[in-house]
Amino acid sequence: MSDLSILGVPGSLRKNAYSMGLLRAAVELAPKDARIEIADIHGFPVFNQDDEGNPPAPVRAFRERVRAADAILFSINEHNYGLSAAEKNAIDWASRPYADNVWNGKPAGIMSASTGRIGGARAQYELRQSMVFLNMFPINRPEVIVTFAPEKFDAEGRLMDGETRKIIAAHLAELIRFTRVLRASA
Amino acid sequence: MSDLSILGVPGSLRKNAYSMGLLRAAVELAPKDARIEIADIHGFPVFNQDDEGNPPAPVRAFRERVRAADAILFSINEHNYGLSAAEKNAIDWASRPYADNVWNGKPAGIMSASTGRIGGARAQYELRQSMVFLNMFPINRPEVIVTFAPEKFDAEGRLMDGETRKIIAAHLAELIRFTRVLRASA
Amino acid sequence: MSDLSILGVPGSLRKNAYSMGLLRAAVELAPKDARIEIADIHGFPVFNQDDEGNPPAPVRAFRERVRAADAILFSINEHNYGLSAAEKNAIDWASRPYADNVWNGKPAGIMSASTGRIGGARAQYELRQSMVFLNMFPINRPEVIVTFAPEKFDAEGRLMDGETRKIIAAHLAELIRFTRVLRASA
Amino acid sequence: MSDLSILGVPGSLRKNAYSMGLLRAAVELAPKDARIEIADIHGFPVFNQDDEGNPPAPVRAFRERVRAADAILFSINEHNYGLSAAEKNAIDWASRPYADNVWNGKPAGIMSASTGRIGGARAQYELRQSMVFLNMFPINRPEVIVTFAPEKFDAEGRLMDGETRKIIAAHLAELIRFTRVLRASA
Repeated sequence: MSDLSILGVPGSLRKNAYSMGLLRAAVELAPKDARIEIADIHGFPVFNQDDEGNPPAPVRAFRERVRAADAILFSINEHNYGLSAAEKNAIDWASRPYADNVWNGKPAGIMSASTGRIGGARAQYELRQSMVFLNMFPINRPEVIVTFAPEKFDAEGRLMDGETRKIIAAHLAELIRFTRVLRASA
Repeated sequence: MSDLSILGVPGSLRKNAYSMGLLRAAVELAPKDARIEIADIHGFPVFNQDDEGNPPAPVRAFRERVRAADAILFSINEHNYGLSAAEKNAIDWASRPYADNVWNGKPAGIMSASTGRIGGARAQYELRQSMVFLNMFPINRPEVIVTFAPEKFDAEGRLMDGETRKIIAAHLAELIRFTRVLRASA
Repeated sequence: MSDLSILGVPGSLRKNAYSMGLLRAAVELAPKDARIEIADIHGFPVFNQDDEGNPPAPVRAFRERVRAADAILFSINEHNYGLSAAEKNAIDWASRPYADNVWNGKPAGIMSASTGRIGGARAQYELRQSMVFLNMFPINRPEVIVTFAPEKFDAEGRLMDGETRKIIAAHLAELIRFTRVLRASA
Repeated sequence: MSDLSILGVPGSLRKNAYSMGLLRAAVELAPKDARIEIADIHGFPVFNQDDEGNPPAPVRAFRERVRAADAILFSINEHNYGLSAAEKNAIDWASRPYADNVWNGKPAGIMSASTGRIGGARAQYELRQSMVFLNMFPINRPEVIVTFAPEKFDAEGRLMDGETRKIIAAHLAELIRFTRVLRASA
């Protein structure tokens, strides 16, 4: 079995976003047979369908990384009870034009965190609804929904909470298992 | 009773978006006691919370128009079964910082259109979920969900379908009624 | 101003449901100008549209209590990330036939509780989506989402947590304010 | 390869529900390597968690049919922009107690129909949200969303519309493909 490549997609442009802290933890926790890299979503203009056939360089680079990945690991932020604009923008750019939706067929994991008590859960189900059209295959369990994030990260943004690290490791294991299942049949 | 000012918020940066055609129809159909103007959401960067206290000029101008309006009329596009990035981006910029959420307390109408048969309905309920946090008050009926849009607009993007024009007029009437109800109590 | 009558609608048939505990707390916390009573949703068959014109006696009694109320206070349970069947069944019976939807036009509050950390939030937004069709007017803030319910109720099912009681009181105040706003215009 | 058994789960207790017509069409359209049978959801009381360990006979029979199936084909009705109470009730009974959730791990297809123009789409995404907790694996494409149902069925409730029959056949083919993928790895 060859190693799997998993692309982590952040949901925020902030320097110290918790979503980025979750992705860095996932990189540390990746098992031996998988390699997790974190995509860069900076420098994208807001998606305009008139430009979908000719995206700027940062979008093109992002699209190629999505295309090359065996699986996707979204780490999302909830803004106003929905996906952040940054996340939706990255998703929409990579989905168009329709005939070259680079998300197509890929398995996916989802993580989210919030300072409060809901942990981004509302945005997770919104993302799952988009995945139906994108034709992605999200895993179910365990869900990574990190509440009260400030208590779980240190001052440098490193995830210190042992229980959350265990859940992320289990999420990665399921994502890898499911990705191998879908690939075996390809 | 003074005239009401309603701000139309488009959901797309496209030149010929159907969502813009719906807003132009609403301007034409506005009753005498209301004035509908269409906001400009071009030139916004993707929202970055690190910059929320110091938005660029086009965002500042948009925020002031939202703040000044008595009611909002969203005209949205559905991308990947959710809100377009352009729409969510405008919403998020105008909502932050939290203590200066300019959507706060405003009544709202919602219109959507699609080339296909669902008419953007999925994105409408996502927007309604965001409105809970934004503390907006959306009207219920009649819903403006325009399916098979290409059959209903002419080549210049003007809404020609009489039935749809009637529904928009009824939506505006309800938005105005509801706005006056909420204002009477302020 | 006459007193307002608020009908509490439980979301569970269980004897010791937390949703019932929330309603009992609301009865205790009701301000002087409102009276909260709790509806009984036992003894309903599963809704069958063939029988919508001739519901059995317990459904008829429930429908009349809904019809007579100035406002509704839902207290819901989340089952499988959605509304409980008991709650949806009560909602559907009272909504039909379409020309005699007794929820029509009523303002509503929503409370939910769960043993875990999401507190029923997912079911709340599902209920709000149904309210669009039912033509109900839910309030926005503060949301009553009670996480880790076993820590907040005593052995008799009485809500002991002071912070939660304050939030319920504020929710009731907003429901009453909003109900008076809507009635003033009727 | 042994034949697959697919259990069709109706979403209505009505005699002439369109959801039942869709299931009968699916039975006719089943390919040679699959057998589709239709479950009976009549005679269930409304779910009460106090009784989850001791369901009545019709519920027990339904649970055993779900347990024995290789895949599930939901045919749902939308009531008040959500799942019908009858459907949610069947789902909740078969999901409890938690340690004996008989939906666990099963692939699923979804069909819906409505007399109007949205075709039950809103209820489909609600069902998908429940499937996360149920740990089911719904397919993505093609979605079976039947609008303006009265034009597509004959007086006996038989699905006559050729295009819709093709979409159902394609949905079944994908459900069978996906079920074999998931089983190959078991």
